[in-house]
Parts: sequence; C-alpha cells; structure tokens
Amino acid sequence: MIVVLKQNPNQSQLESLITWLKEKGIQVHTSLGASRMILGLVGDTSALDIDLIAALDIVEDVKRVQEPYKNANRKFHPEDTVIPVGNTQIGGGTLTLMAGPCSVETEEQIVAVAKAVKASGATLLRGGAFKPRTSPYAFQGLGAQGLDLLKIARQETGLPIVTEIMDAAQLPLFDEVDVIQVGARNMQNFNLLKLLGTLDKPIMIKRGMSSTYEELLMSAEYVMAGGNNKVILCERGIRTFETYTRNTLDLAAIPALRHLTHLPIIIDPSHATGKSALVAPLATAAVAGGADGLLIEVHNDPPHALCDGPQSLRPEVFDKLAKNLLSLHEFMKTQEAL
Amino acid sequence: MIVVLKQNPNQSQLESLITWLKEKGIQVHTSLGASRMILGLVGDTSALDIDLIAALDIVEDVKRVQEPYKNANRKFHPEDTVIPVGNTQIGGGTLTLMAGPCSVETEEQIVAVAKAVKASGATLLRGGAFKPRTSPYAFQGLGAQGLDLLKIARQETGLPIVTEIMDAAQLPLFDEVDVIQVGARNMQNFNLLKLLGTLDKPIMIKRGMSSTYEELLMSAEYVMAGGNNKVILCERGIRTFETYTRNTLDLAAIPALRHLTHLPIIIDPSHATGKSALVAPLATAAVAGGADGLLIEVHNDPPHALCDGPQSLRPEVFDKLAKNLLSLHEFMKTQEAL
Amino acid sequence: MIVVLKQNPNQSQLESLITWLKEKGIQVHTSLGASRMILGLVGDTSALDIDLIAALDIVEDVKRVQEPYKNANRKFHPEDTVIPVGNTQIGGGTLTLMAGPCSVETEEQIVAVAKAVKASGATLLRGGAFKPRTSPYAFQGLGAQGLDLLKIARQETGLPIVTEIMDAAQLPLFDEVDVIQVGARNMQNFNLLKLLGTLDKPIMIKRGMSSTYEELLMSAEYVMAGGNNKVILCERGIRTFETYTRNTLDLAAIPALRHLTHLPIIIDPSHATGKSALVAPLATAAVAGGADGLLIEVHNDPPHALCDGPQSLRPEVFDKLAKNLLSLHEFMKTQEAL
Amino acid sequence: MIVVLKQNPNQSQLESLITWLKEKGIQVHTSLGASRMILGLVGDTSALDIDLIAALDIVEDVKRVQEPYKNANRKFHPEDTVIPVGNTQIGGGTLTLMAGPCSVETEEQIVAVAKAVKASGATLLRGGAFKPRTSPYAFQGLGAQGLDLLKIARQETGLPIVTEIMDAAQLPLFDEVDVIQVGARNMQNFNLLKLLGTLDKPIMIKRGMSSTYEELLMSAEYVMAGGNNKVILCERGIRTFETYTRNTLDLAAIPALRHLTHLPIIIDPSHATGKSALVAPLATAAVAGGADGLLIEVHNDPPHALCDGPQSLRPEVFDKLAKNLLSLHEFMKTQEAL
Repeated sequence: MIVVLKQNPNQSQLESLITWLKEKGIQVHTSLGASRMILGLVGDTSALDIDLIAALDIVEDVKRVQEPYKNANRKFHPEDTVIPVGNTQIGGGTLTLMAGPCSVETEEQIVAVAKAVKASGATLLRGGAFKPRTSPYAFQGLGAQGLDLLKIARQETGLPIVTEIMDAAQLPLFDEVDVIQVGARNMQNFNLLKLLGTLDKPIMIKRGMSSTYEELLMSAEYVMAGGNNKVILCERGIRTFETYTRNTLDLAAIPALRHLTHLPIIIDPSHATGKSALVAPLATAAVAGGADGLLIEVHNDPPHALCDGPQSLRPEVFDKLAKNLLSLHEFMKTQEAL
Repeated sequence: MIVVLKQNPNQSQLESLITWLKEKGIQVHTSLGASRMILGLVGDTSALDIDLIAALDIVEDVKRVQEPYKNANRKFHPEDTVIPVGNTQIGGGTLTLMAGPCSVETEEQIVAVAKAVKASGATLLRGGAFKPRTSPYAFQGLGAQGLDLLKIARQETGLPIVTEIMDAAQLPLFDEVDVIQVGARNMQNFNLLKLLGTLDKPIMIKRGMSSTYEELLMSAEYVMAGGNNKVILCERGIRTFETYTRNTLDLAAIPALRHLTHLPIIIDPSHATGKSALVAPLATAAVAGGADGLLIEVHNDPPHALCDGPQSLRPEVFDKLAKNLLSLHEFMKTQEAL
Repeated sequence: MIVVLKQNPNQSQLESLITWLKEKGIQVHTSLGASRMILGLVGDTSALDIDLIAALDIVEDVKRVQEPYKNANRKFHPEDTVIPVGNTQIGGGTLTLMAGPCSVETEEQIVAVAKAVKASGATLLRGGAFKPRTSPYAFQGLGAQGLDLLKIARQETGLPIVTEIMDAAQLPLFDEVDVIQVGARNMQNFNLLKLLGTLDKPIMIKRGMSSTYEELLMSAEYVMAGGNNKVILCERGIRTFETYTRNTLDLAAIPALRHLTHLPIIIDPSHATGKSALVAPLATAAVAGGADGLLIEVHNDPPHALCDGPQSLRPEVFDKLAKNLLSLHEFMKTQEAL
Repeated sequence: MIVVLKQNPNQSQLESLITWLKEKGIQVHTSLGASRMILGLVGDTSALDIDLIAALDIVEDVKRVQEPYKNANRKFHPEDTVIPVGNTQIGGGTLTLMAGPCSVETEEQIVAVAKAVKASGATLLRGGAFKPRTSPYAFQGLGAQGLDLLKIARQETGLPIVTEIMDAAQLPLFDEVDVIQVGARNMQNFNLLKLLGTLDKPIMIKRGMSSTYEELLMSAEYVMAGGNNKVILCERGIRTFETYTRNTLDLAAIPALRHLTHLPIIIDPSHATGKSALVAPLATAAVAGGADGLLIEVHNDPPHALCDGPQSLRPEVFDKLAKNLLSLHEFMKTQEAL
C-alpha cells in the first residue's frame, strides 16, 4: 500500500501514523521527493482499512498495490480450483453446462426439461424455487415445493441441481441441493455469505449488477474466509447505459478473473441479455474466450403456456447449441497456446 | 400497457393472447396501422409480467404506460406522507437532520456525538451497529452491543435513533429502534423487505448503487404491500464511471421522486461523495432542491483516533452546517412558487 | 410511434396535434381506454422529432415503434453489405484482420510491422497518423508524414491501409487512404460525418464510449444519407464503472447489430481492454461470436523503445493469434445453424 | 508518479527505465519492500505517458500523484478566474444567468425571448444556430443566419451572446460571438480545442456525457495551452443507467471542480434532465451548491408552435425562477463560512 502525504505534513501526526502502522506489523518505507513524501507500506495490508488512512488530515491519497483478497487470489494459490459435483466437476478443463428453466413450475415441466437438457449434454440442472422479483405482485416461485420438484428431476436424470437461496433463513431447505447459487442482488449480503462459508458445499456467486471484479472476489473471500473453498464465480452482465440488452455481458471477466483468481468462471448469457436470440452467439463467444461453463435458461414451451421468459431457449434449440458448444470446446484444445 | 405486434402475427396465437388477457380482467383495444397492429391494454396491469408477454413469438415490444407500483404512487395518494418519529416528524415541510457516526464505537463516543448534534439542531441520531463491509477482514460493527449504546445515547438526549438492519434474523434486536434503515446493498433483499412490511415502524430504504427510481419505488412497494406505509426514501449516490467521488449523488431524484411518489425523501451526501469537503455544498444544494432531510456523518475526532471515515464531519463543522441548513430551509419558504 | 396522452387532454390542442401530423402524411389511429387515450402514428415517422411531441402539454409519453434509421436498417436492406477494399473485402463471410501499431513512428517500424502482420494473415494495415490524445502535452502523431509512411508500407506489402481522421480539414490528405476511420470521440462529429457521406470510400465508425447501438447506427445513417453506403461499424468498448479494464467490451453488439443492420461489424479488443493479456481471449471470443473482423494493435518492440502501448501485441504473438483466429473462423463454418 | 515494479524485475530493463527517466529530468526514488520495489518519480511528470510506462514488462502498475493539467490547476493558480463579457463578468461572486431558446428560429422569436430574459435578470443570451442532432433527418439549425439573428437580439437588448460551434471550419462566422460554446459531443475534438486556444475570447466547454472531471480539465488545458485562459466549464449531466432523466446531473462537480481548478463553473439543468419540471429545483440546488451560473432554456411558446423542447421554460416561469435564484444567491452570502 502506498500513502501519498500532503505537502508539509504535521510531524506529530505523521509519527503517530507510522507508530500505529508498525504496531500492526507493517514496515514503512519513506520516500522523500521534491514536493511531497510517499510512504510504502510492506507486510500484510489486507486488514488495513484504506478509507481510514485516507481520512487523515496529512494524507493526500492512498493506493493499494496488493489485492485485498487472499484465499481467492491466484498469487497465493496458482493452481486452478476444481470442484467436484455429483459425477462431474466444475473447472479443470471441463465445460460445465448448467441448463433449465428460470422457475420450476410443475413436476412434469422440470422433469421434461431435465431429461431434455441431459440428453443434449448438460451436466447440471438449474431451476429457480425462490425467485427474486422486482415487483411484490409478481410470481415469487414455488419455494420449498420447487426444491422438492428439483430433487425429483435429479432422481429421474442423475443431474446435480443448482438453485438460488434468497435468505439465510432458507438454508435448512437447501441441505440436499448440490450447488447453492447466490444471486446478483445478494452478492453483498454479507451475513448470507458468512453462513455459506460454514458449509462444505459448492457456492456459485453471481456478480452484482454494478460490482467490480474486486468486489466479486471479496464476496468469494467472505465465503472462503469461513473455510469453504468451493466457490464458483458467475458473470451475468452489468448495468450500463445501453438499454437494448437487459445488461451488458462483460466477457473480459473471463481472462481478467482467470488472471486474478483460481476459482472457476461461469457465464450466464440468458440473464445478461434478456433476449433469446443473443444467447447462442454469446454462449459461443464465452466458450471460445475460455469460460469454464455456462448457465443457460431452457424451457419446454407447451403451446398453451404464457409464462416463459424472453431469454429462454427451447429444448430443441438448446440441443443444437449444446452440441455446437461441446465441439467448439474440443476444437479450442487444438489451438496453439500463445 | 401497449403491446406492439410483429408484422403478420399468427392469428391463433393472437386470439390466445387476447383471451388470456381478458380472463385477467384486462380490456384490449386493437389499433391496426399500415404495417403492424398495436394492442392497448386497459385495466389493472400492475400484476401483468411485462417480460412474459414480451417473450411471445408474435410480440415485437411491450411498453408500460402506467407505473407498476400502487401504494407508493402519488397518483393514487396525492397528499405527502408525513411520518411521526419520537417528538418530531419526517416530511410535511420539516427539515429532518439525521446525524451521527458511521459506526458506533463506545458509549462515550456515541453519547458525545449525540449531544453535540442535538445541540446543533439534529432531529435524529444515526449510527451503525451492524456494518456491511466489502472485506471480511474489516471491522463489522459492534452488533447488538452497538444497538444498546445507541439506546443509551437516545436516553441521554431524547433523539430517536436510525440504524441499519443487515439480515432478517436480526429483527428481534431492532424492537426499540425508531427508524430501521435498509442499506443500498439490501435494497432488493426482498425477503427482508417483506418482513419489514409486517411492522408498524418507519423504514428508510436507501437506493441501490445501480437502481432506478422505479426499482427504489418497487422496493418501497414491497414494504407497503405488507401494510407498513411508513416508508422513507434515501438517495445516497449511484455508481458511475466518475471515480473522483465514491458515487455520483443524483439530486434530480428529489424533484423526480417528489413527482412520482408521496413518500419523504432524504439525501445522504456523506456516503455519496466519500469526501468530507463535498458534504456541506451538497447538503446545501439538497435543501435548496427540496429534500425532506439529510443523513450526515459526524464524528468526534479525538486526536489519537485512527478510525474515522474520510467523509465524516467534525461536530464543530456540523454545527455551522446545520445552522446554515436550517436558516436556508426557512429562507426557501419565502421563495415564490413557480 | 405511439403517443400516450394525459388524462382529459385539451380538445383543441389535441385536434391541432392531429391536424399537424396529418399534414406530414402520418395516419393517426386513436385508441380510447378507460383512463387515457393513445394515438398510434402510422407512416414515415423517422423525420418526426420525438422530443417535440413529448413537449406538448397534452402528451404524457411518446414511444417509438420503428427505428429512426432507414439506410442502415436491415429491415429495408436484408442482405449483408459487403465492402471491397483493395484485393480483399469486409463482410460477407470473410474474417478481416486489421493489424498494426497504435501510432506510426518511423518508416522502418511501419514497414516491418506491415510485413510481419501480412505474413501472419492480416488483410489490412492499421496505424495512427493523427492521434487523439487526452493531454495536449502528449505525442499527437506524425500527421501528414505518418500518412506518407503508411502509403510506403502499403506499397511494400500490398495491404490496404486504415487510419483515423480527426477533423474535416484533414480530408484532402486522406485521398489515398483505403478506409477512413472515425474515432470514438468523433462518432457524433456530425459535420465530419456529413462530409464523409459525400465520398465513395469505406468509412469505419467506432462506437462512442457512451453511445447506444441506436446512436451508432444514426451516425452511420449520417454517412449513408449523403450517399456513401460503405460504412463499417466498430465496437471498441464502452465506459462503465469497472476500472480493471480501460473500457468494457460489449460483445453482445455483434448479434445485436447483426439483427438491426446489414453493415459489417469489427471488434477492437486492444482499445477495449487496454491490456495485451486480454486481447487474445477476447479476439477469439469475438470470432466465435460472429464478428466480421478485428482491429488489433501490433508493435515490433525493439529493446530500446519505450513507446509501446500496454495493449499492443508483439508480432510473434500476433502471428500465433492470427493463425488461431483463422482456423477458428473456418471451424465455425462447420457448426450447425440454430 | 509512482511506479510499482513486478517481483524480481529484469535488472537491465530497470536500469534502462531509470536512465530514460533521468534523461527527461525526473528524479527517481526507489523504495524496496519485502516483496516488491516501488519507484517514486519526482519532477514535471505531466509530459510522461503513463500508458507507455505501464506497458513495460517489468512494471506492475503506475499511479499518478500529481494532476496532469497545469494551467487549469488551482494548485498553480489559487485565485478564481474572472472572465469579463460585455458589461458583465463570469465568476468572482457573480451569478451568471445564460438563458434563451435551444434553437434560434426567427428574428421575432429570438428578440422576444432576449427581451424577456433580460427583464428577468439574465446576463447572457443563449441560442443555437448550429445544432448537433442525433438524426440526419432532424432540423440542424439556421446556421449562419441564426448567428445574424442572435446579433440582432444582442443589439436590441445589450445581452452578450453565447452559442455553439460545431466545427473548426465555422470559426470565421463566430468573430462577433461573445462566448463560444463547445458542446458535450465535441469536448474531445482536440483540433477544435487547439484552434480555440489561439483566440482571445471566452470558451465554454461542456462536459462530455461520459467524461471525468480530469478529462474535462484536460480539454480546458488544450485551450489554455494555446494561450487562451478564458475558459468556462459547464456540467450538463452524465450518462448513467437511469432513464427517467435524459442524463444524471452531477452537482458534486461544483465543489469538486472548485477544489481542482480556478475556472468558473456553470450548470445546465435543462439538458441534464430533459424535463422542464426538474429545471427549477435543480437550478436552485446548483445556486445553493455554489455554481457561478446557469444555462437555462427559455422559449416563448406561441400557441401554434410545435417546436419547443420538453426541457424549455416559458418566459413567465423563467421570470419567477430567475428572481428566486438571484435572491437565493444574495441569501447565500449571508451564510457562515464552514
């Protein structure tokens, strides 16, 4: 961490700051320029509160040199994390396809979709039982019953299930869930993250709509600080000024997070775009860009239904897409390393 | 709600859509242009899921004409909501000054700050007991003990207290809190909002970092749909590309929300800017712009302390600011209505 | 275009509006709901100023149904535009690789890079002669001399050249340039766009840092309205809150623009990310996602040079990347259409 | 400037970097920590290209300590700049009210508006002759004729005129214009800025829709580097995700720019919001927040006209607003300094 002091700092405040830092085990290197002094702080600065130091009268600016996350940091854990789930794994060269409906509706629906996506090559079944909805008047999901239907679908197909938790109080219901998803709106629900850190179960954290890579990794750090290292990151689009798509999918997250962390990276093109016609091109781009997997909405579309999201693919479209993606994933292994 | 159909829509799908809408009590007016048909939906469309209709094959676009919120909507509740708290009120021409430290630290600190801000004209005491922190390694607040210290400060000064809840499980601890604050990161923690809707206590909801006015009002609607109409809105800056300030304070929220809703509007210039030097000018602008009140960080700064945020004002600065703000608020009443 | 009227509109103002619209050749369909009236405007509404109508006292809201661009609109021009340049073409199934240094520095440099990138498979040579720089104190490019050096490099390699114009007054110098680039900061320099519309030469328009797809297409429309249909669109990242990358590359632009327009779409991963390590994964993603080509910075890095941008690739890295991209482009043709 | 090196940097590259910096007159202070070395660069670093240094293999990160602008920097010019215009001045405690129509339409219109706003207290007349329009099919302004009409209105009222230049080629027409405005879309039209730097005439630069404070000041620096110090800054809203307002007015720009620069600061609430009902509250907030002046759209609204922007005020509304603002400006002088 680098502390840039104001010109002519008060000497007693400066000594007080240096003493305080040394008490915390930080080495302080001073560098005196023509116009101002710079302090280089060496040691474990991850517990230092950058805002507190910046607040001091004598300080002009504070800049981090090291990332504030440790467990999630590739520098301290160079090997990719691979997370076993059921008979499959996430990360480590596998292409994980998580597919299924936005909401679980009926046993018939979820079992049919599960069978279809399994046949197409999906390795996990996704489906929402508790649904975060902007409006209190919109359908909020089947709740516990939805979780039961997901388990039936798992029993019928063998596909592990991934589904979203919305509140710490729901945790007992998630005992048999294979991967617990933390939604974008809960990415900084720190109490929930702490609780999930006490489990021995994969947790997939979706990036918040206006969260930086570093904030996403700090949320992973919350879970990992509790002892649970089975964290999966999911990019699902960020909020920008562009309104044609629901969000702006940030595929630079793949190589950027790959550099910063060892955790697996999943891309959700369905929520990112909100338009089914954009899902396939962006899923394809994500696989070519090096994603560990995809989260894709698939819905069987009985002709009388009026409850499908505009971003869902029909099973027959997903079938072609999944086959394309799996062959592309194989092809990518033949490309020369740069 | 207006539904724009694609050219040459499938007739049986169109009839199916119209039938479905009529079953929901919606009147459908068709308008046939040269190139495409438009459906005008009349009735209570707030429960219709705009995404579901947009997903239909025959639909090109759906546009809302009416706001999706009812209880929070000024159209259905033209009078300003006034919320009594202790011996004061929020809204209705009062200038509410909520002041106090970011975090409660000690009894001495919180009582001293409470006395100081009361003497300066503050009408509520703010202070954090549970602190949402980006890093798991940062100070997380005193928790239940912090709430006890706030109550002591209230007893000493008579100032009602406003403090943040982070999780539904903490609710029993908030029984004696006067105003419960929902932080920006929890603005769409829908389960928490539902729970707070069952109380008879003022709830102050902070706008999420990337939330629109409409989304803020939908979060208010979650609380109000449960029967609790004592909702206060707080603008605290949105996330933009500008990094000089921590967030970008959006003061257009004052007249915009005033037009859309009857709920009181509080401005938080401290969190919005993250810089104490910007707090006073923006607090002043907010009062002139018509805010119902301000949320301002004030910290007594004993020379040995290293734990104040860069956006906090010292009590002596707040004292001058509060007096300026109160006299400005009086002056504004003398201006001619436009 | 749909005009939503306020409740109980003034009748004479309403008649005045309808008369005015009819005089412009617009048919007006009225749809009277329970609470408000809606006007459906049919005809060529592209010349109507949506803001002017929205300003009327009797109007609550105006919503477009049709896009405001015609020449750039795929609806009126379903076939992909293919633009011949030198011995190659842009669009129509070709993968265009535009490569070269950010700035032209010396004849040796530009000729060496041109030869290298041609050998690797590049089809155009890029290089900046006039450089838009945030600081007046930074190197502003070689200007006219830089254009001369580019022409020498073209003569040596046969590669057509693409380079940026910054001002209408520079146009005479661009006579022999093969493709004129309009930079992101000039995307809405409407006088420049009009002037370029009078040429018979390909114009590549970069999306502005905070411009929507529609605004980009309206800038293309400026050029095309003048009679020059040889327009190429370039996505180069938009400005968001994320600071790890210089901009956020929006790859959804590929399928979204493909749907909206018939013009070729080029992706610039170098400027988008500002980091050379992110260029290859995003270039790869862009090809898989369906881009017509890439704009990539390549710089030969003599050991004594201190003037390379952090986003440039060395020729040997570009060589591997280009071969990977070309083989991926071939592979993509074997994937099943969805 | 601080250069953070990677671990174990190549020694010969490091020496080469240090030698190169010293040749440029920069002193280099090295600070060796436990894990990495930091270079503190002292001297005039404004001409160093931060990107070039960041591109070096041995460099992990580069951070500026000093602002890259000199002429616009308050540190080197502590006194507020005051710019005389006609019989008035901009800055220095004056409240400047620039008012007038978005577009000049007819002599009657512009003279009538000019007389009205002068009577209300406006000190400059604004009006657009050349109009930047997103659509090539929209009205582009009267051009040179519009400038002539503005001069007639000036002759009739004595109000100096401020109007927008769109292109360097138009400059000869602006000889008799009192204040030349550079629009938000041209804020980084560097050739135009350089040309305006050669004049002895006030230049008002509007902040780009996605430009930072620093970028705005660098654009001012372009003009000032040419010798023209009469630069006025104008905040007119930035582009964010919020769509209720056309842009998000960033009033923190007032105290932030006040701290960073000595140049006068004008606020444009009309373009920022795009809604006339929001103009008065935000204009009021801006005056209380310390702005040097306002740019407000005023249009006389003959009943048969259909060409007024939704953000324009009618003269009678502006009259009340201007009186309110002027009395508020007087009141603010009575407030105690903090």
